[in-house]
Amino acid sequence: MTLLSSSGSASMATPGNSESNSAQDRLPVLAVVGVGLIGGSFAAALRARGAVSQVLGVGRQASTLTRARELGLIDEAVSLEDAAARADLIFLAVPVGAMPALLSQLAPVLREGTLVTDGGSTKADVARAARQALGARALQFVPGHPVAGKESTGPEAADAGLYDRRTVVLTPLPENREADVERLTHWWEACGARVLRMEPEVHDRVLASVSHVPHLLSAVYMRQVASASDADTRLRLAGSGFRDFTRISAGSPEMWRDIFLANRAAVLAEVAEVRGVLDHVERALRAQDGPALQDFLERAALARRLWGGRRGETD
Amino acid sequence: MTLLSSSGSASMATPGNSESNSAQDRLPVLAVVGVGLIGGSFAAALRARGAVSQVLGVGRQASTLTRARELGLIDEAVSLEDAAARADLIFLAVPVGAMPALLSQLAPVLREGTLVTDGGSTKADVARAARQALGARALQFVPGHPVAGKESTGPEAADAGLYDRRTVVLTPLPENREADVERLTHWWEACGARVLRMEPEVHDRVLASVSHVPHLLSAVYMRQVASASDADTRLRLAGSGFRDFTRISAGSPEMWRDIFLANRAAVLAEVAEVRGVLDHVERALRAQDGPALQDFLERAALARRLWGGRRGETD
Repeated sequence: MTLLSSSGSASMATPGNSESNSAQDRLPVLAVVGVGLIGGSFAAALRARGAVSQVLGVGRQASTLTRARELGLIDEAVSLEDAAARADLIFLAVPVGAMPALLSQLAPVLREGTLVTDGGSTKADVARAARQALGARALQFVPGHPVAGKESTGPEAADAGLYDRRTVVLTPLPENREADVERLTHWWEACGARVLRMEPEVHDRVLASVSHVPHLLSAVYMRQVASASDADTRLRLAGSGFRDFTRISAGSPEMWRDIFLANRAAVLAEVAEVRGVLDHVERALRAQDGPALQDFLERAALARRLWGGRRGETD
Repeated sequence: MTLLSSSGSASMATPGNSESNSAQDRLPVLAVVGVGLIGGSFAAALRARGAVSQVLGVGRQASTLTRARELGLIDEAVSLEDAAARADLIFLAVPVGAMPALLSQLAPVLREGTLVTDGGSTKADVARAARQALGARALQFVPGHPVAGKESTGPEAADAGLYDRRTVVLTPLPENREADVERLTHWWEACGARVLRMEPEVHDRVLASVSHVPHLLSAVYMRQVASASDADTRLRLAGSGFRDFTRISAGSPEMWRDIFLANRAAVLAEVAEVRGVLDHVERALRAQDGPALQDFLERAALARRLWGGRRGETD
């Protein structure tokens, strides 16, 4: 890990120091726009490691900011303008649908030297919105996506351990300065995360596959069960398999609506692939083709067990 | 709870006694055919409550039976013939595809007065197989399905707590004696389960919906991800949502092949309903219809949260 001074945007790498909370790589002022699960957890994780000196909170709801201060996630609630004037790093932790408007608001007040990043679940559209809103200042914006979450939302859900051993994807713009990308990498690593770099389009295709499509299928299935005329009997007999399979469908409707709209093409392409496999399995089932069914089930089970094994799952 | 004497099949209800392990309702001899997760857990649960005196194990693999004896799940490994001669209750805990052959083997050696039940995941086909194999003796067979499980298999996976607060569905045949159904109910309740009675066809439709279709969709999705050309990158970014959504796809391919074949019609009918909802959602996504997407996601999330709330989920 390369450690970097955070005293200004032109800081240089300071190799050979592996203490993550030494004074010179501490973030002086962080501003979090949207102090919910994602933004609040970033603040909490940096605070827990002593990697940030001051945290400002920006948001539309005064009650959320009050709660965030009571919980110790932020030191002060400020306007976006104040945040832009004082922060060294601004973390935009709002739904991707709100990103274009937020970036437009930020553009006229953003100081040279302030680094901006986001936690949005899609990246090609955020990169586009940043270029459109910030113009030449887009070089200060490094798009990112912490691949972590849970169903609960709001500042109460914030958790200093949320990013521990989780992956954060950064999709730097060609105009970003390498030193800025490395500073951001360092802060995410201070949260316990491992950082991967990727093209925005690759990120969006991969996330459509491993995150957005499961959510879509889980919600489609949950909706189908709940709208059946005998839903009560069904739900009474639903067990632990049902519980796990549908867990993600409880997630924030607004957030997921934005994700699906922002990553529409990739999601539709993956759903088409899933339908292809489903067609194959339905044909085998109609034909009562036991060997074909077993072959399919074995490949799926093997793939899942291998993945679980690599993850260190014990069950 | 009505407690019943277990001394013979003509036992009568003995109301007013709520001690589940008093001598007169203890099961003298239980035979478990297939001492894996389901059968082994039934034996372990009855033993843990002191509700059974002796457990015989029947199976094709000597090594499995040896292991089951070492683990204390069974007292003795015997042939199906011996089990039929000595047991008061025979529990058939084999995949539903193996049920017809097993019932045919059992038919010529089954004593009058021995109660037989099963743990198969589908019920209409098991009831048919029992009538076909046992003829008039089918009155001694009460089909059942403990709705509980985990991905691990074999005697090592057996767990005295597996059925605790879980549902067991009994789908009695019209010719079953009420006293037999009540005895069986009592033993399942001794394992901590709550018992529901249902028509076999209703059971199969409901289980297709809340158990078989989730497994099918989870496996279809897992197979699609694993066969993508960039599967490694995808699986590296897969997180906790993916983990839960795909967990069931790791289950036993043989067992699930049998379940899908046995419950083919109901599974295909439910998949068609799921496809209908998916069609609707894909249309909304193509049309970039945010309100329709949000409405769909809200209904799914609300249904899942209500279900989780009733289950006492905290997250």
